[in-house]
Amino acid sequence: MSTEYNFIKACWGQPVDRTPVWLMRQAGRYLPQYMEVRRKVTFLELCKTPELAAEVTIQPIDYLGADAAILFSDILTPVEPMGLKLDFVPGPVFENPVRTQADVDALRIPVMEEDVPYVMETIRILRREFEGRVPLIGFGGAPFTLACYMVEGKGSKDFAQIKRMMYGAPDVYASLMEKVTEMDRQYLNAQIAAGAQAIQIFDTWGGIVSPVDYEKYVLPYTTKLINGLNRKDIPVIHFVKGAGTMLDIVKKAGSDVVGLDWHIGLGKARDILGPEVAVQGNLDPTVLYAPKAHIEAEVKRILDENAGRPGLIFNLGHGILPTVDPEHARFMVECVHRLSQK
Amino acid sequence: MSTEYNFIKACWGQPVDRTPVWLMRQAGRYLPQYMEVRRKVTFLELCKTPELAAEVTIQPIDYLGADAAILFSDILTPVEPMGLKLDFVPGPVFENPVRTQADVDALRIPVMEEDVPYVMETIRILRREFEGRVPLIGFGGAPFTLACYMVEGKGSKDFAQIKRMMYGAPDVYASLMEKVTEMDRQYLNAQIAAGAQAIQIFDTWGGIVSPVDYEKYVLPYTTKLINGLNRKDIPVIHFVKGAGTMLDIVKKAGSDVVGLDWHIGLGKARDILGPEVAVQGNLDPTVLYAPKAHIEAEVKRILDENAGRPGLIFNLGHGILPTVDPEHARFMVECVHRLSQK
Repeated sequence: MSTEYNFIKACWGQPVDRTPVWLMRQAGRYLPQYMEVRRKVTFLELCKTPELAAEVTIQPIDYLGADAAILFSDILTPVEPMGLKLDFVPGPVFENPVRTQADVDALRIPVMEEDVPYVMETIRILRREFEGRVPLIGFGGAPFTLACYMVEGKGSKDFAQIKRMMYGAPDVYASLMEKVTEMDRQYLNAQIAAGAQAIQIFDTWGGIVSPVDYEKYVLPYTTKLINGLNRKDIPVIHFVKGAGTMLDIVKKAGSDVVGLDWHIGLGKARDILGPEVAVQGNLDPTVLYAPKAHIEAEVKRILDENAGRPGLIFNLGHGILPTVDPEHARFMVECVHRLSQK
Repeated sequence: MSTEYNFIKACWGQPVDRTPVWLMRQAGRYLPQYMEVRRKVTFLELCKTPELAAEVTIQPIDYLGADAAILFSDILTPVEPMGLKLDFVPGPVFENPVRTQADVDALRIPVMEEDVPYVMETIRILRREFEGRVPLIGFGGAPFTLACYMVEGKGSKDFAQIKRMMYGAPDVYASLMEKVTEMDRQYLNAQIAAGAQAIQIFDTWGGIVSPVDYEKYVLPYTTKLINGLNRKDIPVIHFVKGAGTMLDIVKKAGSDVVGLDWHIGLGKARDILGPEVAVQGNLDPTVLYAPKAHIEAEVKRILDENAGRPGLIFNLGHGILPTVDPEHARFMVECVHRLSQK
């Protein structure tokens, strides 16, 4: 059934009557209705309360008219039950970061339906709510991005700790990555079993390394993860931020869709990736600060760059910014639909 | 005389007996001898005291054996006398950011020898100290990067203010950029007149925009700046961080050398840029956290990627990180010299 959605058809490179569009981080702080829910609970409580997580997932579908919903959660949700105490202050912080082989050995692989039941329950609620309306995207962090947080203990500018481990203790790094990849595989397969109709893998930090290091230290694990998913009719979207210079390498991970940030022209990216891969992107999120005429011109430019090739999902090149006017986001969605209508 | 330096020869694409190397931010916090000077003065005081600024500029030449020195200063030094109160906390902060046409009109173009005499005096001291030993690189921020700081008032993650101005008030943006470009031109020409033997233009934020926006909103001003320099025998290095996907556009600015970050392979970058432009780069700065064997292998890899093409200046892909072991930086310089020796 789900193949009747434009979003799913575009993931498979099939023709659509208009270009599907959604926004990374479309459930979030820029929406007053989201902020109203958030006033009652912390961010983590929101992730762990299925009814509320479902409510904020639905909000942007009602408001924006997006063609796909994405589960409201955080990429670090399944990492906490591996044995790391997680807090948001407001950025994520792990009290006990992973630094040694003993730290890696102490990590356990969660039993998903027991350790993160709220994620699966949110998915089940959403499937009932959305049936026949929009498909639901599940998601997880790429193993490298999860490992960055686990080793650094928090966000970082220079990623000194993970780089020290990667270069100086490659065996510890490899055993951590193997464990995170296996956890990730089970987590995303549990989401698929619960009803997710597509999976997006976020590699927020995959672009911090050189292309050579990406291929050596990052790609093998993402590839293993994607190969280990129960894909069948479930398309996999792979988004590596800052990867415009190495899309030929990113493609090797084997996803159905490659997510693009705004640092590379869409046409150029499609030329590199070839016709067998769909793409998702790639409007600069700050363009939503612009007057409407400029937003419309930018949507048109990106559609023109795509030149009618099948397999385009319109999106921002990164998450929507919290200070954006929601009306501008809604207008952007409308522009994509209107300008791409066959 | 200065054309006898390997660094200068490499800038012009001439053959050298070994690859010249220096490190962006080579005078800095990673060096204990720098920290000793810094204990006595604030960062701004250090920039404004020629004897001390000269001392820390010389330190890495003595310690690392680098092939070029770069003036110790900050890209915002000439912006302060335009009428913006500058502080470091520790990142740069302007008390009164530029937001309106009236703010732009209120900016004055400094008289360089009167308003920033310490910069020119530092250059004169260094030329005396270095004569016949190493060439001295002067530098400035690219107009766009300076404007980002002036409009945001500080560092930013999303650059909402400058984007709002760029898209929503293009006339204000253009008049600000014209004024900053003219200031920059006079500032860099004053450095050349004082004795700078090469000029590096840092566009730290040039990569935050899409390639299309770079060409429309950033490139015209950098091009005008470069065209307005009294270049004659002074090579110009143009470094735009995060520009690996748009080097073909960056090249149009007309510099003699294009600086590369580590997100693109050196060989690929040279293929895009062609033989008429020299390049500078591009070791991932975090590789200096690695054991020495790994550092040596990475230096070798980059030299191999260059495949003996003339016009290579070895450098990091961004500034050296403050927590790096200085001995690793010194070892890197030694590797470049040893492995590239003819």
